[in-house]
This record gives sequence, C-alpha cells and structure tokens, in this order.
Amino acid sequence: MSPSIRVTVWGEFRHERTNPLVAALYPEGMHETIAASLREHPDLSVRTAWLDQPEHGLSDAVLSETDVLIWWGHMAHSEVGDAVVAKVKARVLEGMGLIALHSAHYSKIFKALMGTTCSLKWREANDKERLWNVNPSHPITRGLGEYFEIPSEEMYGEPFGIPEPDQLIFISWFSGGEVFRSGAIWQRGHGRVFYFRPGHETYPTYHHPEVRRVIANAVRWAHSGVRLTDICPNVKPLESLPADSSAATRETTGYR
Amino acid sequence: MSPSIRVTVWGEFRHERTNPLVAALYPEGMHETIAASLREHPDLSVRTAWLDQPEHGLSDAVLSETDVLIWWGHMAHSEVGDAVVAKVKARVLEGMGLIALHSAHYSKIFKALMGTTCSLKWREANDKERLWNVNPSHPITRGLGEYFEIPSEEMYGEPFGIPEPDQLIFISWFSGGEVFRSGAIWQRGHGRVFYFRPGHETYPTYHHPEVRRVIANAVRWAHSGVRLTDICPNVKPLESLPADSSAATRETTGYR
Amino acid sequence: MSPSIRVTVWGEFRHERTNPLVAALYPEGMHETIAASLREHPDLSVRTAWLDQPEHGLSDAVLSETDVLIWWGHMAHSEVGDAVVAKVKARVLEGMGLIALHSAHYSKIFKALMGTTCSLKWREANDKERLWNVNPSHPITRGLGEYFEIPSEEMYGEPFGIPEPDQLIFISWFSGGEVFRSGAIWQRGHGRVFYFRPGHETYPTYHHPEVRRVIANAVRWAHSGVRLTDICPNVKPLESLPADSSAATRETTGYR
Amino acid sequence: MSPSIRVTVWGEFRHERTNPLVAALYPEGMHETIAASLREHPDLSVRTAWLDQPEHGLSDAVLSETDVLIWWGHMAHSEVGDAVVAKVKARVLEGMGLIALHSAHYSKIFKALMGTTCSLKWREANDKERLWNVNPSHPITRGLGEYFEIPSEEMYGEPFGIPEPDQLIFISWFSGGEVFRSGAIWQRGHGRVFYFRPGHETYPTYHHPEVRRVIANAVRWAHSGVRLTDICPNVKPLESLPADSSAATRETTGYR
Repeated sequence: MSPSIRVTVWGEFRHERTNPLVAALYPEGMHETIAASLREHPDLSVRTAWLDQPEHGLSDAVLSETDVLIWWGHMAHSEVGDAVVAKVKARVLEGMGLIALHSAHYSKIFKALMGTTCSLKWREANDKERLWNVNPSHPITRGLGEYFEIPSEEMYGEPFGIPEPDQLIFISWFSGGEVFRSGAIWQRGHGRVFYFRPGHETYPTYHHPEVRRVIANAVRWAHSGVRLTDICPNVKPLESLPADSSAATRETTGYR
Repeated sequence: MSPSIRVTVWGEFRHERTNPLVAALYPEGMHETIAASLREHPDLSVRTAWLDQPEHGLSDAVLSETDVLIWWGHMAHSEVGDAVVAKVKARVLEGMGLIALHSAHYSKIFKALMGTTCSLKWREANDKERLWNVNPSHPITRGLGEYFEIPSEEMYGEPFGIPEPDQLIFISWFSGGEVFRSGAIWQRGHGRVFYFRPGHETYPTYHHPEVRRVIANAVRWAHSGVRLTDICPNVKPLESLPADSSAATRETTGYR
Repeated sequence: MSPSIRVTVWGEFRHERTNPLVAALYPEGMHETIAASLREHPDLSVRTAWLDQPEHGLSDAVLSETDVLIWWGHMAHSEVGDAVVAKVKARVLEGMGLIALHSAHYSKIFKALMGTTCSLKWREANDKERLWNVNPSHPITRGLGEYFEIPSEEMYGEPFGIPEPDQLIFISWFSGGEVFRSGAIWQRGHGRVFYFRPGHETYPTYHHPEVRRVIANAVRWAHSGVRLTDICPNVKPLESLPADSSAATRETTGYR
Repeated sequence: MSPSIRVTVWGEFRHERTNPLVAALYPEGMHETIAASLREHPDLSVRTAWLDQPEHGLSDAVLSETDVLIWWGHMAHSEVGDAVVAKVKARVLEGMGLIALHSAHYSKIFKALMGTTCSLKWREANDKERLWNVNPSHPITRGLGEYFEIPSEEMYGEPFGIPEPDQLIFISWFSGGEVFRSGAIWQRGHGRVFYFRPGHETYPTYHHPEVRRVIANAVRWAHSGVRLTDICPNVKPLESLPADSSAATRETTGYR
C-alpha cells in the first residue's frame, strides 16, 4: 500500500469560541470537523493546527511533514504572521499542496500565491448554492454527479479577482441571482493550489457529504510527491565559448 | 490622434555610478537610455524615476499618471521599500502595465505578481544570445523577423520559476548550451505584465535596435486603457429569496 | 483615421424563411440585423454571406478581404461544405478573427478550431439569462456594467465541452438553475476566436443593446491586423555543425 | 496492485521496410522497439498496431481496450483513413491518453485535436539536441535530471504552430542554433495529450534511456482512468419557471 498522504488542516478557530451558533455546528472547531472527515480515508494521515498556537501551529517541523495543507481563515487574516506566511509559501513552491477554503480567498497565503486582489461580492442571506461540475473527468470531481446543492450558504459573486485558473472545476449558481467560480486550480512552483468556495462558519457545510468528498479528492490531487527547492545557480557553459572578448565585442557591435 | 501613453522608466541607477564600464555604456543611466529610445515614438510620453529618489521616484502622483511602468533593478532589490512595492502592485492590478527587464525577474514587484520564486540559472561569460520569435503575430513582435541576436549577453537558463505564462513570446538560444523563456506575458488583475530577459548592465543591450523595438511594442501592448479598483462589496439579491429561515434550514439539512 | 475593419457576417438564413416567428423578429435575416448594428460604427466595413449562396458566400476573394468573420448557424451545420470549412479555418489560422454565436458552438468551423465535442445542455423554456461580466477590463466588455440581462432566451448549461479558454469573459446565470461559460476567447494560430452564447432565433436577442455592444467590441478585439501563413521549411544551420558523421555517431552512441 | 494500464503503440511501419538504415536500427519496427521498452514496466500492458493492418489496427475493440495510445507517423499521414481518425479523436475526448511522437506533429489526429497548423522548421543534419527539463516536478519528468542530450537528431525549430500548451515540459537546444518546445501537454475533452519531439527514424532515439523513461512516465500521466462520452441533452429546469409567456415577453422587451 502507498505511504500515507500527510495532511494538516489549519483553522482560525475563533468564530467557534465566540459565536454559539458556530460552536453548535462545530463543537471542536471547523478544522476538527474537516480533519475527522479526512480521517475516514485510510490513505490520509491528518493533523490539525490553528491560529492561537505558537507559530500558528505551523512550525518548520510540521510544515516539513505536511504534504497537503488545508486553510480556513476569516476574521483574523491580519493576525497571521508574515514570517509564517513566508514559510508556508516557500513550502507550497517546493511541492506542498494547498487547499484554500471559502473566506481563505482573502488569506495572506492565498493572495501571495495568486498575486492579485482575490476580491469578490458577498451576501449572508441564506442563498441556495448549486455547484455545477464543469470538469467531470478531473480527479477533484471523482464520484460526483453533474451538480450538488448546498441548501443554505453565504453567497460569493463574480468578478473574482484571481489570475485565470489553469483549470476551472466548479461554477456556482446562487438563488439570489449570482454566479461564482467555486472551484479552480493553479500550479505555483512545484505546488498545486485548489480554491474551494463553500464553508461559511454559520452553516453546517463541512458536514455536507459532497463537500467532504471534494476536499478528500482534492487532497489526493494536490499531493505532488515531490520536494524541490529552486535555486539560482551560477553555471558553467556546456558548449565551448570563445575566449572572453567582451571589450572587443562591445566595441564592434553595430548598435553601440 | 490618440492621447499619449504615459510611460515611467524606473532604473536602479547604481551600477552606472560605481562601474566605469557601465557608465561608459549608459552615461546618464540605463533608464535614460531606455527612455530616450521610447521618446523617438510620438505616441509615448516618457519620464524616468530611480531608486535613490524620495519614494524611489514613485509617488502616488507619478503612479497615478503612469500607464506603463518599466522596471530595471539588480543589486539593490532589497532596498526597494515594501510600501512602494505594495503601491506599485496595487496600480498594476488596477490596470497599469508592467515591463520587467532582465534582473527584474528577482525584483520584489515581479515576484509579488507572480507568486513564485522566479529563480533561474545564470552565467556572465559573453554568450551569444539568439531570441526566437515564437509568437510572430503578437503585438509585441510586430516588425521583428523570425529571430534576432545579441552578440554578447549574460546567460539566463531554465528552469525559470514562473507560473505558466498566458502566452510565450520569445525563447532564447545561448551559445553555451542553454535555453530560456525570454519573453512571456501574464494578466494580473486589470494589468498586463511582460517579462523581457535581455539587458545585463555591462553590455550595450539597450542600444540594440531590436531590443528597443520590443520594448516600444510592449509598451503599447501593456497599455490597458482602464483603471479599475477591485472592491469586495456586500450586495443585495437580484432575485427574491425566501424569508430568512436559517435556523430552520440548519435543523433540517440532511447532513447535520 | 484608421482603415476600416472588414467584417463578414455569415448567417445560415433558414429559420427566417420557414418560421414566421423568426421572420417577424428578423425580416431580412439574423445576419442582416447583426450587420446593421455593426454598420452604426464608422470604423467597421460590413458585408454579409449565407449558406445558400455559391460557396456559402465565402469565396476566396471574400475570405481574403475579411478581417473578422461572425458565424451564426443552427439547423444546417451539416450542409456547410468541408472544403469551405477548411478554407475558413486556414484564414483564421492566418489571422482572421472568428466570432461564433450561440448554436455555432456546434458548427464545423468552431469544432475544428477547438478540437473537442463542444457539447452542452439546453432547454427552450423562456429562461431569463443574466450574463455576469467576469473580465471587466477586457476589450470585449468595454462599456458594460457588472452584468446584463436577457429577459427570455434558450438555456445552455454546463458542462461545455471546450478546451480551457485563454480567458473567460462572461458566465451566465439562468432562472431555471443552470450556469454557462457564455463568453470565452482562444488564440488559434494567428487568429483570435470568441464564442458568445446568446442568440436563439425565436428571441429578439440581436436587437438587445448590450448584445450588440459585445459583438462590436469583439470585432475590434478579434481584428489582429496580421496575415501570416505558417510554412514548414527546411532550414540551414545558423551555427557551424561538425561534418556529417551520422554513421559514426550511430555506431558510437552508448544507447545503441 | 493496480490494474494494468493498457497501452497501444501505433507505428506507421513503412520506413523500416524500405530504408535499410532504419531497418538496422529497428528490425521489428519502431513501434515494437517502443513497445518493448514499455513492457519492462510491470504496470503496463502493451500491444502494437500499424498502418497496413485492417482499420490500421485500430478497431473499435482495440480502441475500447486502450487507455493510452502512442502515435508515430511520418511519410504516410495522408493514408490514415478519416473514419479511423474520427474514432481515435472520439476516444481521446472520452478519456484515452494520446502521446504524439516526433513527426506525428503533422498527423491527422494531432492536428485535429490542436485545431492549428502544427507547422515547424526542420533540418536533417546530425544536430546535437539537448532537452531542458523546464518542469522538474511534473510526473512526465520524474527521475530525469536538469537536461538530457541526444547526440544526433533531426532538428525541429520554432515557431511551432500549436495552441499555447497547458504546461510546457521540455525546451530543446540544437547545436545548429535553434530552439523548440519539445514536450508539451494539453487537455482535450476528458483526454490528456502529450507531444514529445525526439524520434527521427534514421537515429536510434527510441533506444535512448531517457527518451524511454519520458515515454513511460507520460503513459502513466496520460492515463485518466475515466471514460465519459459527452452528450448534448435537453434538460428540464431545476427551479420553477414562470408559465411560458414567450409571445408576451417578445412583445414587451424594451429592445424590440
């Protein structure tokens, strides 16, 4: 059997401790609910981390042992330290997968990898969301039908300020009249990045069977199996070059 | 006649003041040589800025009046202030074009827009560089032949740590045996980004006629003509939604 | 002033002659309605062509004088001759723009350029369509707001069997619950291709002001200004090669 | 253990029977040499097919049982029947992988999937080819170093008339002075397509260990594990629509 894929589920873990509605839905935190759903898969080895731990739970050792990182943040993006963000980004570029969930569109790490605003429209009004599977042969949609529905969710609407995705996976239809690119993938360095829209804290979205299936599929897809650190080496020529004739060349080029 | 495209050519302007060879090639600075070549085009309105000016010459007023920014930096990337980089990035995302030249592959602004390492191989050994035009109908290659040569240049080699370009424009062949994606474009927000490889400071590259033509073409291509600031608005539904029944819905969803 | 962009609007022109409802909406044919809207723009020089003309109205002379071709077809895709399709495709690859409207998703020319099935879901049931502008700085969306609505249209739904677009322009929301990538662009050879969804024959869609604006914008965007014919030349080396030592080389390569 | 990946290696098998040099390098045909190298991998189940078999060896049964098809053709592209090409294309769009080798850039099947000319420059002059690995974390380059060399090969040069690849894998440096995008991938429907440049018939290229490794890697990458046939269904609405009021709507739309 293949060795396990090592997953770290990172949660902000603040709403759950201040909002009774959220606490009722996610008694141990959203990250633990997501982790529990992944622990049902024997090929995944899952741990959790959260904002208020030292180094936000993302020490060098944890990052080094993580193949795929899942990120949920919302009210405290600005409290995530820049040094930790820089380390997470470096690990993604080395080959660690990143799954950015819902309001993580505005997380420091997602914005740093995209290079854009990642802005969007939003509304909390109990919209119905129907996610259309626009990429039915992609590994992330394995086992899904042509669409699935979430009866109540926050709405996110276009335009979404992202670079053109490498591939689009889901487009959401909202009952209030909007659409959104709800699932999309990008390669960044040696790492694979998946953005997945659903998951407002006041809804039971991470208990939803198809949402859980998408996240598990995405973990396997995002596992690159590589760890490569880019360098910027000075290299010798592979073919023989003429003796250094810089000065001469510079004098005789027609354009100077 | 169309209104002018407002170009700002930004140079680090350090090598020119410390290295006599560079000073001989670019007596007023590389930025002024590039600017002078652009001033030959009556549709372009060109100013310059450099590192050691207040705010690196990139005040809000200058950025606001710039349609396309050209960036050359090398030895002092780390001296460019983060606040200025953030403002330049915001302007690119609003629609300002950015042309990153040569060692600007490692500039803060280019790396922030790409989200990747932007690493590469390099060698200073008087290689001959032949730039193949792989996109002969792109506006950036207007008027060029199938290739052009630079008799002496620094070598940059693959792998180049960039996101897959939206379109590839040039691939370089080097006499020492390497290849490089020497011209490539990306959309970032409402701004257009062009990376163009040639231009090591100890060579007369910015006097080269085809290099100058590429930069002028790229200015016109990168001029988006728009200025849009992304926001993240809370919006009302466009279709009537059922009365807020959150609690009820939450109780009755099958998955919770 | 710039020379005109030469546009040919091609229509199947069959529904209009057999269905009184269509004839009432488009008395001179859908192609003439589209052409008339483009003739309001002084920079465009517009002609029309249709299926039942000799060579479907697309002689070598017409194609040669066309910068951008607009295509509407539906019930008679199979009657379009393969030789004409091959000539149109060759012209697109040389730099002629192509705007494929509505049911032209299944035209021979669009499928030949995409290489895929171009299949989709559909329904004629008077859906309301709301087209979201997901690319507000693209030339094709110049002058549009964040969305526009068509009160009654045929529905097209995902998945749409196309290659990932170079850029997505519009996503449609339908009142019946579906979504669709309603505007998308691709580069093919030296030609620019835009697919634009609206325009079922039994609705007055080509009288709709924003639909007309999109088509006019797209014409300007699709005008490449180039005509390049790819060849496959045998070429001499640019660097001196060793004398042909094929036999020797073949004997001494380690892998044979 | 996973079930085998079923590979069919298709060869034109003409040069081998008319050119003694080719026959000496590939006594049983190029397709058999390629197949033999793949048979060294226990996870692959490999058969061969060639032009002069009935249906070119690609019956419905063979295609149905093929997960990945490898294609080498050169002198007889025009003899491949259009009906077979149509069936192969349909299978790729359903999820069969396709690996197009060398002169298969001009095969009917590759051109049909790309939608472009697929033209390039070429020269038979014993060039040295150095393939740079520009995507070192991609599954196709697993186990390769930063480059590998082929001491003698036909040269292919840019521009290569392809759609922008989804990802670029290799760029070749040629001793005669050219460059080429020697490895590139595209998604077409549910199928994955890889173009790989090396393999002129008069060189022992398919005995080269790194070439063989790339092909084996590419087979595993191109195996999608899915078979999906796009349809174009008429569908009922998922949300209740107002009663059909077409005539009324048409009369009252402001734009007609």
